[in-house]
Amino acid sequence: MAGGLGLGLENTLEDLYPTRQSRSDFVITERKDPVVWDNEIGVSALSDEDLKFFEDNGYLFYKSLFSDQEIKQFYKEIEKMTSDQEAKKTPQYILERNSGEVRSIFEIHKKNELFKRLACDKRIVNVARQILGSDVYIQQSRINLKPGFEGKEFYWHSDFETWHAEDGLPRMRTVSCSINLTENYPFNGPIMVIPGSHKYFVSCIGETPEDHYKESLVKQEIGTPDHESLTKLVEKSRIEVPTGPPGSALFFDCNIMHGSGGNITPFPRSNVFFVFNSIYNGPKKPYSGKKPRPEYIAARTIESIKPCSL
Amino acid sequence: MAGGLGLGLENTLEDLYPTRQSRSDFVITERKDPVVWDNEIGVSALSDEDLKFFEDNGYLFYKSLFSDQEIKQFYKEIEKMTSDQEAKKTPQYILERNSGEVRSIFEIHKKNELFKRLACDKRIVNVARQILGSDVYIQQSRINLKPGFEGKEFYWHSDFETWHAEDGLPRMRTVSCSINLTENYPFNGPIMVIPGSHKYFVSCIGETPEDHYKESLVKQEIGTPDHESLTKLVEKSRIEVPTGPPGSALFFDCNIMHGSGGNITPFPRSNVFFVFNSIYNGPKKPYSGKKPRPEYIAARTIESIKPCSL
Repeated sequence: MAGGLGLGLENTLEDLYPTRQSRSDFVITERKDPVVWDNEIGVSALSDEDLKFFEDNGYLFYKSLFSDQEIKQFYKEIEKMTSDQEAKKTPQYILERNSGEVRSIFEIHKKNELFKRLACDKRIVNVARQILGSDVYIQQSRINLKPGFEGKEFYWHSDFETWHAEDGLPRMRTVSCSINLTENYPFNGPIMVIPGSHKYFVSCIGETPEDHYKESLVKQEIGTPDHESLTKLVEKSRIEVPTGPPGSALFFDCNIMHGSGGNITPFPRSNVFFVFNSIYNGPKKPYSGKKPRPEYIAARTIESIKPCSL
Repeated sequence: MAGGLGLGLENTLEDLYPTRQSRSDFVITERKDPVVWDNEIGVSALSDEDLKFFEDNGYLFYKSLFSDQEIKQFYKEIEKMTSDQEAKKTPQYILERNSGEVRSIFEIHKKNELFKRLACDKRIVNVARQILGSDVYIQQSRINLKPGFEGKEFYWHSDFETWHAEDGLPRMRTVSCSINLTENYPFNGPIMVIPGSHKYFVSCIGETPEDHYKESLVKQEIGTPDHESLTKLVEKSRIEVPTGPPGSALFFDCNIMHGSGGNITPFPRSNVFFVFNSIYNGPKKPYSGKKPRPEYIAARTIESIKPCSL
């Protein structure tokens, strides 16, 4: 299959994390990459304690990293973006199947000037740079607007599993940052994480369908781990649910097992989401053998971020 | 429509809580019944403080009301009941649509000797008798076995709304008791309540279909309140999520607005559930005008409970 697509994306690296196979057994294997990488750029954004916590647990949560004033600014921009009827027709906008309301907007760092600046804000980008030990670029950015009453659950998954299979990220050298726009309560469908699960790779059953992303953004079924593996991961550790006011930020390793419950409460749950990938971990040919997902979901252009202030 | 069914269940009482109408507006009205009724039987199971809490909030939660040893006994009986292939064919057993696994068993106080004794255990029945100020009977009993990973959400509802419309309970003089068989965490789909919401009646839109219970036990759509009313109730108050170990018990007023989220965690959420109705509040003709639900879901035979010890 290699080379058949003529994409110039030959994988010279061995596939360290095979997944999406048709085997009937699932496999948990140990992570083959560091969590915290050697720091070649000398950035120091985190305390030793926080860095150790991230290495051990795979996430870090900061309450009120952004001010109420900043969150208000974000909302203003979001209102502009969601009321732009022309923009809603672009593929970057993911709409609810039934109501047609905006559920997510991708590539916000390209579509909006404020979110472009936010993407390089030192408070977040330097955390990613320190953990990944190198310069980084935006592999994905988006806003999620999870409404009250009807917020759907998102089943457990490792982001890396998808990014490896569908986008061709070779190594686990990617960090996500989710900034709460709304208060996260335990009961309005917050992200749940399994601390320590980032140290194991759970390969998933099932061949990836062509254009899988069109379905998986609404409800993921391929690329989800089996019950037995999840039970093992939780038994080794526990489930944590970071909750906090608007402006809180959750940094998490690309391979931590996470998910979120539904939301029947009146409280919406919305966030801004950035994925920072090391410039040394750019995408190869997708390991599932299918064609890569579109640029707005998984950037294939590496533009190193220069840290800025919002 | 009255009398047309020939059921001998004429309602001589005015309908204090009209619902299931085809109007396009929803109405929140004040409760027309006491929460704590005059105590004609002199039972004293609750402290004044707890009684006041129940009156104000509509619920009471006791951690570890039942011992680990008792919970083990319950499980033994449940295992017997769920492995009884013949019994699974009876209507009292509600099975998951896809897997065929047992989701609920009704009338457990008739089907099983231990649960018959549990239904009259002083620790629970005297709480109901004191709140309702009279002798009580079992209007419904069941076990809910909500599995891990795939536990479905149950949307907000007032039980009374259904019992009034579909079973003909005339007044709000009914108390439920849910005993946790598993640990309730914030993240495995525990019951959420809106404290104080029991003081308001939210009438619901939509005519009740014939045999509605066959659908509503799996997923309730008719008899659920609108977003605006729910928002108002939450704004007046808050959402509470009582959590605790196996053996904890939640008592709640028949009209408190409650619901539960889905459960994608490996932790199952199972409980034993009894509904105690005042002997003075026996069912009339259903206020929705439809035929009453079956006896195993809503008893129409009033057998006063004599308190016992398990």
